[in-house]
Amino acid sequence: MDLLNKTINSITGQNQTVRTQAKERLDQLIMPHWALGRMMDLALDIAGICGSAHPCIERKTIVVMAGDHGITDSGVSLFPQEVTVEMVRGFTNGVAGINVLAKQAGAEVKVVDMGVAGDLSTLAAGGDIIDRKIAAGTDNFAEGPAMSREIAVRALETGISIAQELADSTNLFGTGDMGIGNTSPSSAIVATLCQIPIAEVVGRGTGLDDAQLKHKIDVLEKALILNNPDPADPIDVLSKVGGFEIAGIAGLILGSAALKKPIIIDGFISTAGALLAARLAPKSKEYMIAAHRSVEKGQIAALADLGKEPLLDLQFRLGEGTGAAVAMNLVEGAVGILTEMATFSEAAVSEAK
Amino acid sequence: MDLLNKTINSITGQNQTVRTQAKERLDQLIMPHWALGRMMDLALDIAGICGSAHPCIERKTIVVMAGDHGITDSGVSLFPQEVTVEMVRGFTNGVAGINVLAKQAGAEVKVVDMGVAGDLSTLAAGGDIIDRKIAAGTDNFAEGPAMSREIAVRALETGISIAQELADSTNLFGTGDMGIGNTSPSSAIVATLCQIPIAEVVGRGTGLDDAQLKHKIDVLEKALILNNPDPADPIDVLSKVGGFEIAGIAGLILGSAALKKPIIIDGFISTAGALLAARLAPKSKEYMIAAHRSVEKGQIAALADLGKEPLLDLQFRLGEGTGAAVAMNLVEGAVGILTEMATFSEAAVSEAK
Repeated sequence: MDLLNKTINSITGQNQTVRTQAKERLDQLIMPHWALGRMMDLALDIAGICGSAHPCIERKTIVVMAGDHGITDSGVSLFPQEVTVEMVRGFTNGVAGINVLAKQAGAEVKVVDMGVAGDLSTLAAGGDIIDRKIAAGTDNFAEGPAMSREIAVRALETGISIAQELADSTNLFGTGDMGIGNTSPSSAIVATLCQIPIAEVVGRGTGLDDAQLKHKIDVLEKALILNNPDPADPIDVLSKVGGFEIAGIAGLILGSAALKKPIIIDGFISTAGALLAARLAPKSKEYMIAAHRSVEKGQIAALADLGKEPLLDLQFRLGEGTGAAVAMNLVEGAVGILTEMATFSEAAVSEAK
Repeated sequence: MDLLNKTINSITGQNQTVRTQAKERLDQLIMPHWALGRMMDLALDIAGICGSAHPCIERKTIVVMAGDHGITDSGVSLFPQEVTVEMVRGFTNGVAGINVLAKQAGAEVKVVDMGVAGDLSTLAAGGDIIDRKIAAGTDNFAEGPAMSREIAVRALETGISIAQELADSTNLFGTGDMGIGNTSPSSAIVATLCQIPIAEVVGRGTGLDDAQLKHKIDVLEKALILNNPDPADPIDVLSKVGGFEIAGIAGLILGSAALKKPIIIDGFISTAGALLAARLAPKSKEYMIAAHRSVEKGQIAALADLGKEPLLDLQFRLGEGTGAAVAMNLVEGAVGILTEMATFSEAAVSEAK
């Protein structure tokens, strides 16, 4: 609990002086005023986050937090639980979506076993993944809490420690997730924290049909009644209806914000983690960049609560950090605009009449 | 006219056999079906355009077509005409928006003087720009046609020849424009070809206020009545209310389509050029990728006419090819998905139940 509290207490807002400096420069660049729109807003944020009008975002890391979910026993996902292990192997072999898109963006991929049900010891021993396994998946929160309050805190602190360990090699973080069934805890977290009926935030996940979707909603409605998580207590919500990888993402965000490093929030699962982080430390929102609008409708409610407009809408519904990877290109472009373009006077270009 | 007709006649549609092969592979990749949404649609298009399930898009070129406009004499733009020359110098010095965003995307920038009013001979002699100057700006189409029909054809053929010259060093083209006042001819082209009232497609350009916007609409309404361009004859439209750089863009698109190379269409000016290309050779649409939704509202009508949904919406209103450059990252990601990801069977990942 010490690390969590210390981290939360150390999170302060963006550097407003640097934001003002950056704004003054951006206002004078050789183009109609603010003609690169959202990329210029993004440049302001990166400057304010990094506390520098010449921010460096060269070293980029996507952290893929992996964990399993007891609630898959209740038939909420199309894919069997062993896919989590299989996909983690895929990540280490470089053949998954996140590998391709991270490579395109010039980012490293770090996979963390936060609580995968299968055996990943060989990969852990070989250094291919970071082993922080808390347990072999959460308990089924259709039957009781997903984890204890103590474990929830430990999972959050694990995420914070990952941010700290990767800090030296990372200027820009991206979140990612892998965990069969994890749209269910994400929906439960968003419904509880935003106080929205669960049916309004449950989507088709990996591709449920109408009957399967109805079953998923039924299971989650009952699970929320059974567990009765307290919307005013994010750790209670996490422990009762959360997941290890979601806790890891929330912790990573808190750690990144405390380190004053920008962190790109991927899709629905990551946005649920971001919402937990925001409830624990509201100022952490100033370090978050929303990558994309997911097909999962619960993400829209969570983004609205966070006050974030996503940069991209490419109809992604994969997770893994794929949206965050694509958005890294936009951050790179934004920093280039701030640091490499000339002003009207530098370039001797005539201004508007 | 020979080059134009020959090019138009040589444009055939995408390779459907390769599209089908690509679709079969994409259907089997290790993720929920089509979970990378629009990037997978894009991958299909690139495969169909290039006629290869392993398309190469390594060499990328943004072609910035520059030209001036007599209609600036009628007070339709905030910026003085000399800014066109000044910005072309900025491009060659590497300090403009397109330089930064092309660099981020790994693309080369080629600037073509299609008809800039100022003297660029030193830059042309040094090889910093491609000199194809047709005239020192168009005539003011508020007073008569912008150019003769003969010149319009020559400008289109110039664009085609640029595509041919750059073909060996380019797998993926992007369009760009520079020309103070060029939202006016673009609006006139879109209004005429789409048969929409001009007021519905005129925007604020570089930042007009309400009174200036009303004046711009008045000038263009009168110019369209005076010139009476024939919507069924794209060359008539181009000659009466077009511009040299817009013709160059249209020609570049036709040349690219004839060469079976994908071409990313930038913002409003480029979309007006794309509409001309589509009217001259409807199959050329199959080679176009719409980069982004511009703040200029006329672009939305033109994109709808082309049947294109833009990939990005970043509130850009700059031109220069900046939106095309950003979209190149998405094309690169899309090709990576098609060529580097594993299938369920290759990666031994379990499929949906």
